[in-house]
Order: sequence, then structure tokens, then C-alpha cells
Amino acid sequence: MAEFAKTDRTTITRLPKRGSYDKDTVYAILDDALVCTLAFVLDGQPFQIPTGFCRIDDFLYIHGSVGSFYMREIAEKKLPVSIGVTHLDGLVLARSAFHHSVNYRSVVIFSNPELVTDKSELYTALEVFTNKVQPGRWDDIRQPNDSEWKKTMVLKFKIEEASAKVRTGGPNDDEEDYDLNIWAGVVPMKLERKALLTDPKLKPGVEVPGYLR
Amino acid sequence: MAEFAKTDRTTITRLPKRGSYDKDTVYAILDDALVCTLAFVLDGQPFQIPTGFCRIDDFLYIHGSVGSFYMREIAEKKLPVSIGVTHLDGLVLARSAFHHSVNYRSVVIFSNPELVTDKSELYTALEVFTNKVQPGRWDDIRQPNDSEWKKTMVLKFKIEEASAKVRTGGPNDDEEDYDLNIWAGVVPMKLERKALLTDPKLKPGVEVPGYLR
Repeated sequence: MAEFAKTDRTTITRLPKRGSYDKDTVYAILDDALVCTLAFVLDGQPFQIPTGFCRIDDFLYIHGSVGSFYMREIAEKKLPVSIGVTHLDGLVLARSAFHHSVNYRSVVIFSNPELVTDKSELYTALEVFTNKVQPGRWDDIRQPNDSEWKKTMVLKFKIEEASAKVRTGGPNDDEEDYDLNIWAGVVPMKLERKALLTDPKLKPGVEVPGYLR
Repeated sequence: MAEFAKTDRTTITRLPKRGSYDKDTVYAILDDALVCTLAFVLDGQPFQIPTGFCRIDDFLYIHGSVGSFYMREIAEKKLPVSIGVTHLDGLVLARSAFHHSVNYRSVVIFSNPELVTDKSELYTALEVFTNKVQPGRWDDIRQPNDSEWKKTMVLKFKIEEASAKVRTGGPNDDEEDYDLNIWAGVVPMKLERKALLTDPKLKPGVEVPGYLR
């Protein structure tokens, strides 16, 4: 089981039992998320932006407009970043207020930006990203033309300083509280896809593709 | 319609049409979220932690253990923070890869921590937080005792430097792409509560309360 080396920044100090440095655990949490939070420092102040991402092997990729102030700042100044992903999996309703909690899976990564310039790597990053958002989509759509590629910036971040934190299961109440007449348990939470909304401008006769059914 | 004053840090420069400084918009996005991301700077490095929160009027409240390294650092060093909330509302599937997008509602706040010490404010913050996670819960459970209050730290952050960014609606394709035989539309996304999981240690005879049915 491959693990990330612990560092001062990634070592879980609060409730360390919930921490994990296992690569498979970290990667599964990342791959299950569509949006991450990118935090960075400008003039000593903390900034953050939510953004889509994908992972290819040991790298996390994001993309944006070449007109994006933050993409440019991060790329040009090579700003160190913290990248976070959190899944809220459940509300843990204990008998005491104190032991209320949530079930979650989260990852934090510390890394540095690398500007992607290789054409085939750019193409692969966008393909993997698009198919992560919607499996099967990339081969079905009009792919980027030269002008669109020129407007797109892709950054990658090596994943080597990373940790996960996970809580699962039901409430853990104080022994004497188990006798209280209070309902306890978990409300599971899940980010779900709902029924498709077809573009009113859809060309007549175009069917919903198999990968969306 | 009350608005937050724009600052250099909160002015939306990329796709400014999606930006909003309207207080009601910002507050609605915050109140619809259970988890925020708290970003801060330590030794020049960006850090972030996901954490539950609630809003009372113009303040955002978080709580944690007095043993939490980050809670203590933020409180003691009065670290400036950036607080972010993001809802992923839909996957926007356009005819071109380039115009793929997501529907979202996000808020970013810049603020500074204030340690809450007033007993009645502490109580109200925990009550509002608990009832936000699960409406009706607070009056049903065993409330904190002295020892539990001593273990709990509450911080609040004035919400006065804040902005929202929102995308809604379907894909916006290039004019010539509307004639392509490609399905386009939106996959709505929603974080949903699923069927309750009862604690196996539930005291026999305890029913699911009305506010959870």
C-alpha cells in the first residue's frame, strides 16, 4: 500500500485516527469530486477559488481562461497552493449536541504549479477532464479548435504532499447518554444527478446519447 | 437592495456578469451550505480546512475543539481568513468542448476572527448551527454541559467584504455549432438527504421524531 510521506503540513494532529496518507484513499476521494478549492497567498492575504479539476496519475490538472487573473498570477509567480476536496457524506445525529458530527471524506494537497505547454498533454488533460464530468462526452462533441486552445491555460500540480481525513459510521455518544429517549443515527447525504434538461435550441431529431441514459 | 462595497479583493474580474454583491444573494448561498472552506496563511504558506458553519445576521460562526491547532492559531494570531462556499448545481453540456461549463453558486468572504466568549452568544451560535444541520434538533437533544462548553471554541467572522458568483441556465454555444447533431443540455446536480440510518444502539421504543420524517 503506497503512502505519501507525512510532512509538518500534512500530518493530521486533530483526531489523527481519521487521517490517511494512503495514495489509493487520497486518489479515490479526488476522483469522486468534480470541484476543488485552490488556496494561495497574494500580498500575504489568503485567497481561494473553486474550480473543476481532474487527476492523471500523480498530477492534478486544472484549466481556465488565459484571461483569468488568478490562473495567470499562480502560473507567472509560481505561487505555492493548497488544494482541497471535501465530500459531505452524512449528518451524524447523536444524543448529545456535543457528539453531533458529519461523515465526510476530505483531501488536502500542498503543491506548486507547472504550466502545461505540450500539445498532447493539453489534449489528454481536457479529454480526461471532460470525460470525468460526463463519461463518454469527449468523443461526441466538437473538440477545441486552434483559437480555443489559445484561450485555454492548463496548470498541473504534482501530488506528493497530501493527506486524507475520513469519518464514517454512526454517532459515538457518552455511555450514560445511550439510555436517553432520543433518536440517534445518520442522515446520509449524496450529490446526485437529476433528470436531464434538454437545451431548448437542440437541433430537431437529436437523441439523448447512450452515455447519458 | 443592500450590497457589499466592492474591494480590490472581492471585485469579480473574470466573467463579471456572474458576480453579485447583493447581501440577500450572498446570505442565501451561505445559508444553503453546511460546509465552508477556511483558508489562511501560516509562515507564508496557504492552508485550508473544511468546516461546518452557520450565519447569524452579519456574522459567520464556526466552532471546533479547543485542542484544534488551526482554531487556536487563527484565534491567537488573529489570522485574516478567506471563507468560501460552493454549490455545484449542474453540468452544462455544450456542443463544443470549449463551452462546457457548470452551474454553480459560490461565495467568497475576506474577514478576521473574533473569539466568542459571551455565554449567551455561544449558546445561540451552537443552537443555530445544530438546527441548520437538522431543523428541530436542538430542543430534542442533551445540551452541552460545563465540561463540554470548556472543550468548545467558537469563532465569528464579520461578513462585510464578500461577493457571490453564480451561473445558471443552459449551454451557450457558438452560432455555427447549433446545427451539429450533438445533444446539449444540463445535468442538474443536488446534494440530497437519503433514507435515515438508525443507530443500532438506539434505545428500544424510541421513534423517529417528526422533524426527521
